[in-house]
Amino acid sequence: MSALKTTATVPEIASRNGVVRSGSRVVPEEMPIAFSYRGSTHAVMMATPADLEDFAFGFSLAEGIIVSPDDIIAVEPIEAGAGIDVQVTLRDVTAEALTARRRRMAGPVGCGLCGIESIEQASRPVPRVAASGFGLITPSDIEEAMAALGRAQLLNRETHAVHGAGFFVPGEGLIALREDVGRHNALDKLIGAVLRAGRKGEEGAVVVTSRLSVEMVQKAAILGASVLVAISAPTALAIRTAEEAGMTMIGIARGQDFEVFTGPERIVAGVASNVA
Amino acid sequence: MSALKTTATVPEIASRNGVVRSGSRVVPEEMPIAFSYRGSTHAVMMATPADLEDFAFGFSLAEGIIVSPDDIIAVEPIEAGAGIDVQVTLRDVTAEALTARRRRMAGPVGCGLCGIESIEQASRPVPRVAASGFGLITPSDIEEAMAALGRAQLLNRETHAVHGAGFFVPGEGLIALREDVGRHNALDKLIGAVLRAGRKGEEGAVVVTSRLSVEMVQKAAILGASVLVAISAPTALAIRTAEEAGMTMIGIARGQDFEVFTGPERIVAGVASNVA
Repeated sequence: MSALKTTATVPEIASRNGVVRSGSRVVPEEMPIAFSYRGSTHAVMMATPADLEDFAFGFSLAEGIIVSPDDIIAVEPIEAGAGIDVQVTLRDVTAEALTARRRRMAGPVGCGLCGIESIEQASRPVPRVAASGFGLITPSDIEEAMAALGRAQLLNRETHAVHGAGFFVPGEGLIALREDVGRHNALDKLIGAVLRAGRKGEEGAVVVTSRLSVEMVQKAAILGASVLVAISAPTALAIRTAEEAGMTMIGIARGQDFEVFTGPERIVAGVASNVA
Repeated sequence: MSALKTTATVPEIASRNGVVRSGSRVVPEEMPIAFSYRGSTHAVMMATPADLEDFAFGFSLAEGIIVSPDDIIAVEPIEAGAGIDVQVTLRDVTAEALTARRRRMAGPVGCGLCGIESIEQASRPVPRVAASGFGLITPSDIEEAMAALGRAQLLNRETHAVHGAGFFVPGEGLIALREDVGRHNALDKLIGAVLRAGRKGEEGAVVVTSRLSVEMVQKAAILGASVLVAISAPTALAIRTAEEAGMTMIGIARGQDFEVFTGPERIVAGVASNVA
């Protein structure tokens, strides 16, 4: 498949300070991306058509379809109507486990589950994260991580309309950054990129440009990241889930300022212990 | 069911200008909300537990389960494990049509559809919107709508972490506003609120605090709104879909400034025709 455009330049009429002008603007592309295993689609997401291999690895891991990147043999994105069908070939044993699971439950949505069953499925337990591989994180790490994230968001610099998710390793810097119109997709892509680079979640912190809903915490925990940093605020359920995962959650990280919601013991003294 | 809390006050450690202090912050609640029809769940969304009746009407309309608010006889939210099961009772004829549809297609996800079928389902055609019922919209309407939206977002004023969707009727003002941690949920709730108030989409403009992805345009078109205004930017697919729907799409609406992407003919002259 040829490379897909991630932006489009569109005409617009802008009114600024009461002055009306025709012009143009660069906007992000968005299209339906399906993930199929053994010829059957697992889900369709509206997403930015970039980094689809990373997306396939991260999505498959976050959905519990694979437990390791070795479970995937091949990823082939194929143009399909108005979107892309990303066909993922699994190792035999992984594919058989998926088929067995599909037989047990006809699917999460509209397939005969009652409310309580569906809610239990949506509320699966979050894995505990391991101790971080880098010791303590410093306030200047947090500031540097967010600044590096901002610098690396090339698609957002053009469009001002996409989210970014990055992986920051103290002492090494931002080693991966992925962007998407959807914040969950950006994080799935990042997870795939980290895994495919042979890195592990405990080596660094996940940094994101969005708010922290529970699904963002679940995905970061599945990667094994012990620190999650966001520009914006968390939800109450996201905080409870980070607590359950044993994760350090930092929100409203802007410039040198930040707020710690869970796990302050992973931040150097001065934050964890010398509270004013 | 007793009223649910929409916020929680959580402890946090804040670092500001290098000074570390223990404090607290108000964050939005989030929980799994299932929508069930005839005992079977259609979908589960992570959402703010408020305005669940509005949410049920708007979701059911946006999903094509109902075509009119009269198709719903009763909405009963029931506590179910960690979430809420919103049980929607449909008129007999509507319920039978849904059952027949479910039989035809086993479900959108993980139920045996191949990629191209799933992508076609995700890319359903958008309805054409009617002429607006209020004539032309003025730049001061746009400014007033966004200002009123900001003033009405009470949950966001507390938490700085939720999206808002409002319905602005020129000459009347903002007649409805709904908030949620998810922008799609906020819009579904708004659609339900507008319908339940006996109003029609063509009477006003939908105004939202988020970016405009294609699903936001589809929902606004299903309500029948001919004008959609957002604080942030649209995606390329959202613009093409607004064009297809015959909708006026205005983005990056801040203060008196805004940008028009489609349908400038619904805005008073000076924008539509007197382009510099």
